[in-house]
Amino acid sequence: MKKLDGWVTTPQGFVTAAVKAGIKASGNLDVTIIKSTVPAATGAVFTTNKLCAAPVLVSRAVARRATASAIAVNAGCANASTGKRGLEDAREMQRLTAAAIGAQPEDIYVCSTGVIGQFMPMAKLAQGLQDVAQQLDNSAAHGEACAKAIQTTDTYLKHVAYETEIDGKKVTVAGIAKGSGMIHPNMATMLTFITTDAAVDSALLKPLVKEIADQSFNMVVVDGDTSTNDSMIVLANGLAGNKKITTREQAGFKEFYAALLAVAQDLAKMIADDGEGATKFLEVNVVGAASFADAKLAAMTIAKSPLVKTAFFGKDPNWGRIACAAGYSGAALDPDKLNLDIGKIRLVENGLNKNVDLKLLAPTMAEHAISMTVDLGVGTSKATVWTCDFSYEYVKINGEYHT
Amino acid sequence: MKKLDGWVTTPQGFVTAAVKAGIKASGNLDVTIIKSTVPAATGAVFTTNKLCAAPVLVSRAVARRATASAIAVNAGCANASTGKRGLEDAREMQRLTAAAIGAQPEDIYVCSTGVIGQFMPMAKLAQGLQDVAQQLDNSAAHGEACAKAIQTTDTYLKHVAYETEIDGKKVTVAGIAKGSGMIHPNMATMLTFITTDAAVDSALLKPLVKEIADQSFNMVVVDGDTSTNDSMIVLANGLAGNKKITTREQAGFKEFYAALLAVAQDLAKMIADDGEGATKFLEVNVVGAASFADAKLAAMTIAKSPLVKTAFFGKDPNWGRIACAAGYSGAALDPDKLNLDIGKIRLVENGLNKNVDLKLLAPTMAEHAISMTVDLGVGTSKATVWTCDFSYEYVKINGEYHT
Repeated sequence: MKKLDGWVTTPQGFVTAAVKAGIKASGNLDVTIIKSTVPAATGAVFTTNKLCAAPVLVSRAVARRATASAIAVNAGCANASTGKRGLEDAREMQRLTAAAIGAQPEDIYVCSTGVIGQFMPMAKLAQGLQDVAQQLDNSAAHGEACAKAIQTTDTYLKHVAYETEIDGKKVTVAGIAKGSGMIHPNMATMLTFITTDAAVDSALLKPLVKEIADQSFNMVVVDGDTSTNDSMIVLANGLAGNKKITTREQAGFKEFYAALLAVAQDLAKMIADDGEGATKFLEVNVVGAASFADAKLAAMTIAKSPLVKTAFFGKDPNWGRIACAAGYSGAALDPDKLNLDIGKIRLVENGLNKNVDLKLLAPTMAEHAISMTVDLGVGTSKATVWTCDFSYEYVKINGEYHT
Repeated sequence: MKKLDGWVTTPQGFVTAAVKAGIKASGNLDVTIIKSTVPAATGAVFTTNKLCAAPVLVSRAVARRATASAIAVNAGCANASTGKRGLEDAREMQRLTAAAIGAQPEDIYVCSTGVIGQFMPMAKLAQGLQDVAQQLDNSAAHGEACAKAIQTTDTYLKHVAYETEIDGKKVTVAGIAKGSGMIHPNMATMLTFITTDAAVDSALLKPLVKEIADQSFNMVVVDGDTSTNDSMIVLANGLAGNKKITTREQAGFKEFYAALLAVAQDLAKMIADDGEGATKFLEVNVVGAASFADAKLAAMTIAKSPLVKTAFFGKDPNWGRIACAAGYSGAALDPDKLNLDIGKIRLVENGLNKNVDLKLLAPTMAEHAISMTVDLGVGTSKATVWTCDFSYEYVKINGEYHT
C-alpha cells in the first residue's frame, strides 16, 4: 500500500469542480460537485443529532440505494433548523444538481455546512451548481478546489489517498474532509467524502462504512459537540477493473479494507490535529479494559475532559486528571492495578504514584503529538481516541465570534 | 422560613475550630472538626468515581450507622490514589479524631481534599487534630474558620443557614461547601457539610440526603469532571426539641425538607457561580421533556458544552449551539416543536429561527446571572441545571498550574 498526495479525482472516473457562488460571506469557493462518470456503489453514515439538517434527511435515502452518481456540497449555509422549507430546499438542490450533470435526483447526495437557522440562498446555489457542472474534470487542481470549497475555518486542506493492488489491478482510495471543532461557531459539520475506483459490492460496502467510521471519525473528539450535519460518504465506481469484491473472505478484501481504513484514519487524525485553537495532537490509548465499549468510554472521557486538555496545553503532565477521568468514566477498572504512562514514561503503577521527576517529561510535553496510555487492569480490550488540547485560542475563537 | 448569615455552628449543639497544620502549601487553615455535642442522626452521599479516595471508603461505613459524632476534615492532601497505605491513614485519622474529642472512631466521618497521589503527612495531621480538639466552640468566628479550612481555591466562603419552625420549636439548618471546578488543578473535591438541630429519624434522613443531593449538587456542572473525593454529609442532632420527624406525612416534615433543600440548593448554586474562571452564572432549564431523566440529560449536555459556555463568556446569544447540544444529548425531542428562550426572549419557536434582532438580547447577555429555557416539545417533565461560563481564566487556571 502506497500513500499518495491525492484528491478525490485521483481514483479513476471521478471529476469535480468548485465555484464561488457567494454563499460564504468571505466570497471564497463554496459550491462543489464530486461526480463518478459511472454509477458507483455507495455507503454513508450521518450525524446522530436529533436536530439533523435537511440535507442529511435527504442524503440518508440516497445511502440506501445500490448506486449513487454524485455528491453536491455547499458551504456557508448549513440548511439546519430550517423546517419544511429547508427540506424542500435540500430536495431542490438534488434536482438542480441532477439536471445540471444529467443524472437522476435520487442518485445525488446533498451536503451543506455553515450557519445554522438560515434558509439556503437558492438562487445563488442554483447558479453555482450550474457553473460547477460545466467545468467538471479529473485534474488535481479541481481536486484541490473541491477540498477548499467544503471547508469553513479549517486551517489546512485535509486530503489523502492510498494506492493498493487487488487482483493484479491498481486500486486507489482517496478522501477529503472538513472539520475544525465538531461544530465551529455556528459553522456546523464534519464532512468526509471518499472516492475509490475499487469494484466492490454495494451490499458489502454499506456496513463497511459504519465499521470504518467507528475506527476513525467516531474515535475523534474535539469538544464533545456532535454537529447537526456530520456526513461521511463513500463512492466506489469499480473502474480499477478488479474482480468485484463481494465477501470479506474474497482475495483483495483485506487490501481494500486496509486502504479505506488508512484514508479514514488519516483524515480523522487531521481533524483532531486541526481542532479549534489546538496546539497539541493527543492520542489517548486505553488498554486492559473489560470490553471495547469500556475502553472507548474511558478513552473518550479522558479525551473530552477540559481539565486534561488544558493540562496538555500548559505542558503539564498532570496524571491525576487523566486517572480521575478514567475513574468517573463508568468503565470497570481495578484501582490497585491501574497503570498510566505519558509517552514512554510510566507515572502510575498498580494504582500508586511512582513519584517520577516530572522534569523528565518536559521533552515529551514539548512535542506537538503526545500519546498517553491508561491500563485499567481488568481485561484485554483496548481503544484509541484522538483529540487536541484546549487553549486560550479555543475560548477566543468560540467566545469572541459573534452571531 | 428565614434565611440567616449562618455557619455550621448556628444550629444548637454544634462546635468547631480550625488550625493551620502545615498541610496546605500556602500555610492557611487546613484542619477542622465539626462536632455535635450529642450523637446526631446522619446521612451522606459520596462520589461515584471508581478511583474514590481513601477517606470516602472509610466515611461510607459511617454513613450507614444510626448516628455520628463528628466530621474531621483536612485540605491540602486528598489522600486519593494512595492504595492500602492511604486507607490505613484514613482509618488512623478517624482514630486520632476520636481520641482527641472523646468519641468512637466508627462515629467519625473523615474527609480530605487537595493533591492526588500524595501520602498524608500524618504527623502534621495528628498535631492539627489535637490542636483543633482543644479549641472547639460554637462561635461564629470558629464557624467561619471551619468554612475557610475546607477550601482550596474557592474565591469566596460558601455558607448559608435557614431557620424554620417545626412543632412550635425553632429549627435551624446550616451548611458550608467547598468546590471550584469539580476538581481543581489536582485539588480534588466538592465537600458539603450540613448541620441541623432538627430531630429527625435516621432511617428517614438517609434516603432524604440522596434525594436532596439529586435536586442540588447533582444538578451542578462546572467542567463535567467528577472528583475522587466528593462528599455531602448531614448531621441532625435533635437539640431543637421538636417531636422527632419519622415519616414524610408527619407535621413538620415539609418545613424540614424545604429548609434542607434551600441550604443545599443555595450552596450548589454558589459552587456553580464560583466555578474556575467563571464570569457568568448560568441556569439551564429544560421543559417539555418525556421524562425527568431526559430533561436532566438535555440540560446537563447543554451546560457541559464548551461551545455553549464559551458563547456566554463572549456575551453571544448563540442559540444554535444550545439547540445543537439538546439535539445530540440523546433526549427525545420534536424538531418541529422545539422552543428556545434566553432570559425572557424567545429565539426559536416550533423549530424555526424567529430572527430576533440579537441586539435586543444585549442587556440580558450583559447580566452576571443568565437563564435559558429549551422546550423539547414532547412531554411535561422538566429539570434545571446550574453552571458557569468558560473563560480565558479557566484555561489559565488549569493550563498554567504546574504539578
